[in-house]
Parts: sequence; structure tokens; C-alpha cells
Amino acid sequence: MSVDVVTEALAGERRAVARLISVMERGGEEARQALSRLYPRTGRAHIVGITGASGTGKSTLVNAMAKVYRKQGLTVGIIAVDPTSPFSGGAILGDRIRMRDLTTDEGIFIRSMATRGSLGGLARATADAAHILDAAGYPVILLETVGAGQNEVDIARTAQTTLVVDMPSAGDDIQAIKAGILEIADLLVVNKADLAGADNAVAALRAMLDLGAARTEWHHGHLERVEGVVGAGEAWRPPVLKTVASRGEGVAELVTAVQAHRQYLEDSGLKQRREQERVEEGLRRILRHTLLERLLGQISEQNLERTVQRVVAREQDPYSAAEMLMAEAGLDGKKE
Amino acid sequence: MSVDVVTEALAGERRAVARLISVMERGGEEARQALSRLYPRTGRAHIVGITGASGTGKSTLVNAMAKVYRKQGLTVGIIAVDPTSPFSGGAILGDRIRMRDLTTDEGIFIRSMATRGSLGGLARATADAAHILDAAGYPVILLETVGAGQNEVDIARTAQTTLVVDMPSAGDDIQAIKAGILEIADLLVVNKADLAGADNAVAALRAMLDLGAARTEWHHGHLERVEGVVGAGEAWRPPVLKTVASRGEGVAELVTAVQAHRQYLEDSGLKQRREQERVEEGLRRILRHTLLERLLGQISEQNLERTVQRVVAREQDPYSAAEMLMAEAGLDGKKE
Repeated sequence: MSVDVVTEALAGERRAVARLISVMERGGEEARQALSRLYPRTGRAHIVGITGASGTGKSTLVNAMAKVYRKQGLTVGIIAVDPTSPFSGGAILGDRIRMRDLTTDEGIFIRSMATRGSLGGLARATADAAHILDAAGYPVILLETVGAGQNEVDIARTAQTTLVVDMPSAGDDIQAIKAGILEIADLLVVNKADLAGADNAVAALRAMLDLGAARTEWHHGHLERVEGVVGAGEAWRPPVLKTVASRGEGVAELVTAVQAHRQYLEDSGLKQRREQERVEEGLRRILRHTLLERLLGQISEQNLERTVQRVVAREQDPYSAAEMLMAEAGLDGKKE
Repeated sequence: MSVDVVTEALAGERRAVARLISVMERGGEEARQALSRLYPRTGRAHIVGITGASGTGKSTLVNAMAKVYRKQGLTVGIIAVDPTSPFSGGAILGDRIRMRDLTTDEGIFIRSMATRGSLGGLARATADAAHILDAAGYPVILLETVGAGQNEVDIARTAQTTLVVDMPSAGDDIQAIKAGILEIADLLVVNKADLAGADNAVAALRAMLDLGAARTEWHHGHLERVEGVVGAGEAWRPPVLKTVASRGEGVAELVTAVQAHRQYLEDSGLKQRREQERVEEGLRRILRHTLLERLLGQISEQNLERTVQRVVAREQDPYSAAEMLMAEAGLDGKKE
């Protein structure tokens, strides 16, 4: 990679940014070197995660939010992550639909990312792409993920402010799926609020939030938020907002609420604490990946295959086999 | 752990099996030792994965399938995985609902597993639980996961036969979510087939399957299936079945189709090849986890915290920081 790509990306040159994200997706030494140059310039952007079930209109909402930020004179980076598809086809389709709407605006950068290989890899590549956009000077980064599983929770951890998008619905099943994702919501949005049942959806979400608040007292994972509250003297109660993204209704109010949350993060000291958690989680992710990569680089393919055969034949259990491979690669932490 | 728990579990003693699964969930040395004793006794069960979106009636279907197997005189182990909830509450609730229905039958063992810590941990614990039930002599293991993300794909890899459950629906969004999960389907089920639109759902799934079959020619991930076809002389075309699980309709036919797939796996040689992939993926999972665990055991908490602070302050990029931690723990693969 020429030195210029990093320099150009740091200067905000769009094509260099795009190429650098591809470098990050491929990973390896080239990616590591680029990131070490970019990293000191990160930490200025506000990264906003947008998640929720399929069909709630997240992409339309993200586009509408981008337009509001543009009216404020801010450039916007959009990263759309689709972990449900092992193909990049879906992501590419999403890109094209968006392009039609936003392509004429040079102040908006859009990138889709689909699963390539492991999910851990996707979360890492997503975080790296956000770092690049941050270093390239985008003050706002919208990080959109599909679904409501642990994947999305992991990816959303890259964000400083997380929006969970819902829509009016008659079904009860949808509520069940959301129990997990509500834990990470800083703001809740009922999109398609012109449909029947919007107020019911708002009421249901508020009720679930109140239940969640009661849980914070005994659930460890939420203690952070409780501590944040104690430190700041006042709690952040996730607001529930209604939008009709396709017509832009309620979107300016949503962006205002996102900015209020950013202010809260800074005033309460929670921003710093969350940043520490994010960095620690990112470190773990890199370590898991790099350690395995290194081990696989140190043992021959034949050796790995023979080991697999022994486990398949039940001559060895997988944990003992893993022990052996680590020892052979000198990665058992025992210096000789 | 007393030696007797493993011995008792191998003899099929239910409480010992339950205790052993808890040991596996906690992980660590105790789990590894137990597994190395159990492992030679595994490989006899047929592990059937059941996945699909929330609300499709998967739990009801799993219960109905268990009853069919019981009528055939087979005992059944059920593992219900809920990766969407960081709380075990949802899983416990699911257990209770099931208990009402199946609790009186000693030939059925039910266990729910929710996310504790990392998702990789959940996939590993699920695989270990399946190993235990296998070694304990359950000839059929039903492994139920919620959702359609990469999580479920990873967990479903433990299964030899994977069912994807759908239901009639008016929405197009649902179809989009399924593009990824269809890749792993050996059988498709349209449950709640008494609702309007069941035949449309069957037709839509068949169309998507045909599209997927066309893709196999150029998509690497599917080459395995193509090769399997070449080797066996005939392809497995995933059947699409209709069920009304709440009334038991179509469930006996589904179980027959599952058994036909098992036969196909054996006759085509695909069973052996998939088992190798499963073992290799399992080894990677264990290595990733163990290597990180070992590294964190070798560096002090203060050191980790100082490193995090340096990265937060942008004095060091995360990849360089990871390098340093690996070197300090002697896990950089360089023996001195």
C-alpha cells in the first residue's frame, strides 16, 4: 500500500477512505500498519448505532438522519452492516437503493459490510471502518445493523449512542425478541408511526424500559449505567420517539435527542468509562483473532488435518487436541 | 467434581447429566477433564438443529417432534438456545412452559442455555452440552436456536441435520432475512400451515432454494454440497414441509424426512466430511477462547488497565497494544 492512501484518507479524500476500508476488511499486516497511523487522529466523531428488526425502516431512517445532519453543515459517514447474509449481495443491493437517494451529496460517505468469514471479523472490520471515517474527519458516523442478536449487540458496542428502531405491530412475538436489545438502547424510535398502533408500541416500549430500569439494581451488566447515574446526579432515561422516516417526520427531533445524549455522555463522565470498555473489548477481539491466526501460521496444514482426524475418530477430545496444537506452536505461554 | 458425576452421566442418570452441563457452562479445567472422559463415547446421536425467526412456533414444533420420537421408543435430549437474551430469564420462562407439557416423561431431557459472556462461549457450551447428551445415550438431540443471524448459523453447525422453520406471512421483509439462513437448511418447515398464505410461503421458499442451488456453482461456501452431490451421484434437495405443530399435524412426516436426511448423509459420505468441518470449527473455537484466557491469566490486571488507558488516550493503537500484551505473556510464538 502506498503511503499516500493513508495520507489522502486523513485529508478526507473519499476514494482513499474507500480503499482503506477494503484494506481493513482484508486484515493482516497492511491493515495493522495503516491503523497505527490513523489511530492517533480518531476519537473526534460521534458514532451513532442504529439497530432493530428487519422491516422497521432503519435504512430510510438513517438516510433521513443524514439529511438533517447535512442541513447542519456536518458531513456524515454511513456504515451499513448486514451480518445475516454470508453473501455481500444483499449489502450491495442496499447500497444501490441508497445511492439513488444520496449519491449526489459529496458530504455523505456510504459503505456496506457483510459477513466474510467469522462474525468476530465483522465486528472488528466495522470498528476499523468507523475509525477510518473518524480519522478522515467525518464528525458523525451512522452505524446501521440488522437484527436483534448478540451480533448486533457486539457491533453496536462500537457506537457511543445506540438507537433501537421499532415499528407498530400487532404481534406479541416481536416484543419477546427485544428484551435483549433494549439493554443497549440509549434512544428508542417507533418508526412508521403513521401506521395503526404507534401509541401502543410507544407505551409497550416504555413499559419494557421501566421493567429494565427495575432490573438494573440487581443485574451486573447494567451497573455501569447505575454508576453513571450516581456520578452524574441524574439518570438518562431512554426517550421513546415517533418518526415517519419516509416523510422525514420527527427526524429533526430525533437528531436533537441524539445530540442531547452525546451531551449527557460527556457531562456524566460516562463517555470516558464507555470508551474504556469499548477499547478493552476491542483489544480482546483483536487478541482472540491474532492469537488464532498466529497459531494456524505455525502449524502445518497436515498437522492440523491429522489432529482433526484424531478427534473425529474419538481418539482424542477437542480440548486435549487444542492443548497439543498450542504447545506445538509455542503458544502455550511456557517459555523454554 | 467427583468422578461419579461423569460415570453417572455416562449411565444416563438425568441429574448427573444436568450437573455436567452446568460444569461445561462454567468452563475451565473441570469441564475439560470431564469432556476428555466423555468424548470417546460420543458420535452416536443424531443432532438435529431447529432454527428460524421468533414467532414461527419452533418450541411447539420441537415438543411435537420429541413426542413422535418417544412413540418410536427413542429418548430425546432438547437443548434450547436463546442468544438474543443476555439474561437467562427468557430461557427459564421457556423451560417452565415446556415443563408443563413434557415434564412427566422421563425419556425427555430439556435444557435451556442463554448467553453468558461471549457468544463464542455459548456456541462452545452448546456443543459441549450436545456431547454430554450424546455420551449419556440420547439417540436424538434437538437443538433449538432463535433467530437468523450468524450466531444461529454457528450454533447450527453443531447439528448434523438443520431444519429452518418459517410461517405464512404477508410481509416481504421476512424473506430478506432468510437469505443467509437458507444456506444451512437441510429441511424447510412452514409451521402454522393452517394460516392463510401457507402455500405461498412454500412456493416462496422453493423459489429461494432454487435460486440458492443456482448459486452453488459459483459460491465457495456451497462447494461442499456440490462435491457431496458429485460423490453420491445424486443431490439432496431440501424438502419443504407443512406442519401445524400445535395439533401435531405433519410432524410424523417431518420426523420421517429428518431420518431420510440422516440416511442420505451416511450414504453420500457427507456425514464424515461435515463431521470433519464441525471438529475443525470446534477446535478453532476452543483455541480462540483458550488462547485469550491464557493470555489474560498471564498479565496483571493493572497492566491490562494501563494498556487500555494508553489506547483510550490514542498514545497507542489497539493492534500494537495487542502485540505488546502477547509478547509480555510469552504468547507471541517466539520461544526464547
